[in-house]
Amino acid sequence: MSDSLTSNFPPEVYAQRLAQAQAGAANAGLDGLIIGTGAELAYLTGSWISSHERLSALVIPAVGTPSIILPAVDRGDLALSAIPQLDITTVGWVDSQDAHELAVAALNVDSAAGFKAVGIGSSITADHLIPLHDLLGAQCRLELAVQVLKELFVSKDEAEIEQLRGAGSAIDRVHAAVPGLLKAGRTEKEVADDLNELILKEHSAVDFIIVGSGPNGANPHHSFSDRVLENGEIVVVDIGGTYGPGYHSDCTRTYIVSGDQNQADPEFKRFYEVLHQAQLAAIAQVRPGVTAESVDAAARNMIAAAGYGDYFIHRTGHGIGLSTHEEPFIMAGNELILEAGMAFSIEPGIYFPGQFGARIEDIVVVTQTGCETLNNEPKALR
Amino acid sequence: MSDSLTSNFPPEVYAQRLAQAQAGAANAGLDGLIIGTGAELAYLTGSWISSHERLSALVIPAVGTPSIILPAVDRGDLALSAIPQLDITTVGWVDSQDAHELAVAALNVDSAAGFKAVGIGSSITADHLIPLHDLLGAQCRLELAVQVLKELFVSKDEAEIEQLRGAGSAIDRVHAAVPGLLKAGRTEKEVADDLNELILKEHSAVDFIIVGSGPNGANPHHSFSDRVLENGEIVVVDIGGTYGPGYHSDCTRTYIVSGDQNQADPEFKRFYEVLHQAQLAAIAQVRPGVTAESVDAAARNMIAAAGYGDYFIHRTGHGIGLSTHEEPFIMAGNELILEAGMAFSIEPGIYFPGQFGARIEDIVVVTQTGCETLNNEPKALR
Repeated sequence: MSDSLTSNFPPEVYAQRLAQAQAGAANAGLDGLIIGTGAELAYLTGSWISSHERLSALVIPAVGTPSIILPAVDRGDLALSAIPQLDITTVGWVDSQDAHELAVAALNVDSAAGFKAVGIGSSITADHLIPLHDLLGAQCRLELAVQVLKELFVSKDEAEIEQLRGAGSAIDRVHAAVPGLLKAGRTEKEVADDLNELILKEHSAVDFIIVGSGPNGANPHHSFSDRVLENGEIVVVDIGGTYGPGYHSDCTRTYIVSGDQNQADPEFKRFYEVLHQAQLAAIAQVRPGVTAESVDAAARNMIAAAGYGDYFIHRTGHGIGLSTHEEPFIMAGNELILEAGMAFSIEPGIYFPGQFGARIEDIVVVTQTGCETLNNEPKALR
Repeated sequence: MSDSLTSNFPPEVYAQRLAQAQAGAANAGLDGLIIGTGAELAYLTGSWISSHERLSALVIPAVGTPSIILPAVDRGDLALSAIPQLDITTVGWVDSQDAHELAVAALNVDSAAGFKAVGIGSSITADHLIPLHDLLGAQCRLELAVQVLKELFVSKDEAEIEQLRGAGSAIDRVHAAVPGLLKAGRTEKEVADDLNELILKEHSAVDFIIVGSGPNGANPHHSFSDRVLENGEIVVVDIGGTYGPGYHSDCTRTYIVSGDQNQADPEFKRFYEVLHQAQLAAIAQVRPGVTAESVDAAARNMIAAAGYGDYFIHRTGHGIGLSTHEEPFIMAGNELILEAGMAFSIEPGIYFPGQFGARIEDIVVVTQTGCETLNNEPKALR
């Protein structure tokens, strides 16, 4: 991904985000933040550099200049990001150096005073976090940096929403072609190969492709197989890609092979109508001031009232932005209050093991009065 | 990857590894191990299930039955592993449950007694590790589980070495075809597309492809580009794939477009000969009882003596097995004593920025008396 993406926001955007993250860390009483690679780094710097067993991390001290710590051989990869235009010190390390010591030193804390608390990026793996914690000392409290960053990136600004709109339209154009692909006699994999090509035409990368026909549609995590489609069968198509500077699309529609509703199982048609109404009810519930769990409940209660509660086995949705799954999670127990600018999926599903499944998914963005739906292909079976 | 791989070792192999890991944890004074997804899980259970923001983890208590904790919707994915045949409790969780509490409970420690120390899998990310640590308590010491597992998986047994031999031969067959692909007028990307197809014929997945021509060869982390090859140019080709139950190949050769050595830059030919001898010197150093860093030094000293020391900018090698990069790392500062069964790359390189680079890489396995080289394509420029 790092080769195909460049930061397309101006450097000032990242400079402001970095300043806000630093202020947030200071206000939260943290010595600073140590952020790994992935969406959090991309949000703060526009960089999608990859990290494996060698540490790459952005260190934002509560006071002083941030540093990017990375293997010296990877320095060239920073050119694709805003980092060369930002006030960030580049620390390239070679294999004989201890990268964890360099990261801890970049927090600018007097080691005699000791470390109190540090915010850690969610993608940092244990093989880095445990050595970092050993250097920071057992007295140092580790928190997830997302506690500080959440205010920044859970609510999207207008430029980000514009990218999510673009991603939504891109995947809508792919879904518009799906009825033409679902012909009896083709395999799920043949359909997926076509989808791969169509998604790449509209995005910089394919994130995932689910083509679940018949009983395969009852497994929400099925990808695709050599199963052959038959006339009148139900097919769940859930697809997503990477768009612009790294924003994601994610949209599900449920189709019938041949497109003729009359061929569908009558019990299926009944439950599909319940699902359709439940998805609309959840969207209708979205507005500033309500909880994330209330949106989940709006869909879930309607499905349960129709007697299908045991067959809706996952949460109603997840936040989306520079990662496909992020806060806010739309599920029971999440009392987070929705605010304008939050973007997430609304994707109830009903699954009858061994028979069929159905799911309808749109991305929505909370507005001042309700929400904007970023996916707009028809939801009726077709 | 989870769709194309199945565990092809018998369940008894995994049962024995699990018992050894449990005994190792108990002997090290740990309350148990919490292992994430990836190579460590595959080593212990044959499972390559994936994990994202939802926790999937194998919990091995020092005493009692291990548990696999995973989202209930992913339970079906365990069928591809040995887990259904092993004495492992499956704990499927739904979104309204706290997976971290379930993982900590599976350690079977009396909560009144409290946790002393837990071994953590290297792939577990901070968004899981910090909540786990909060539940385990600040008094609980976190260690990398690899400290316990290292004895198990850093030295490969004969069945594993046989898989690595297969992977080595597979990538050798791909390299054998490379001279025919490197024609003047083709782009690096066209060559990479051909390599993608050839690697897939011999492996279940492509791990990476580097085609670095001319100045691109001077960047060890270059992948491939639209740069057009010219006659007499130097091209670094570093490729790898996934083989059998998840073992990796990784082999580099340096080629000349057209195959005519006389067309190569004389300075390049001089340094290529130094590199070739340095790579052979490092291989000659490998035997039980010597340190990992002594193998690095064997290559590095020879390159430095020829005046190219500043241009060899990375470690000499990395372990390989169920992950492409793992212990033992062949680098300065690593005093690990080599033992029979350890498998790693020997891959010195010399890089002249803006001009050209070269690297020669083989996978070797330590034997009782020296080492076996798993890659056997010619190293002379061709």
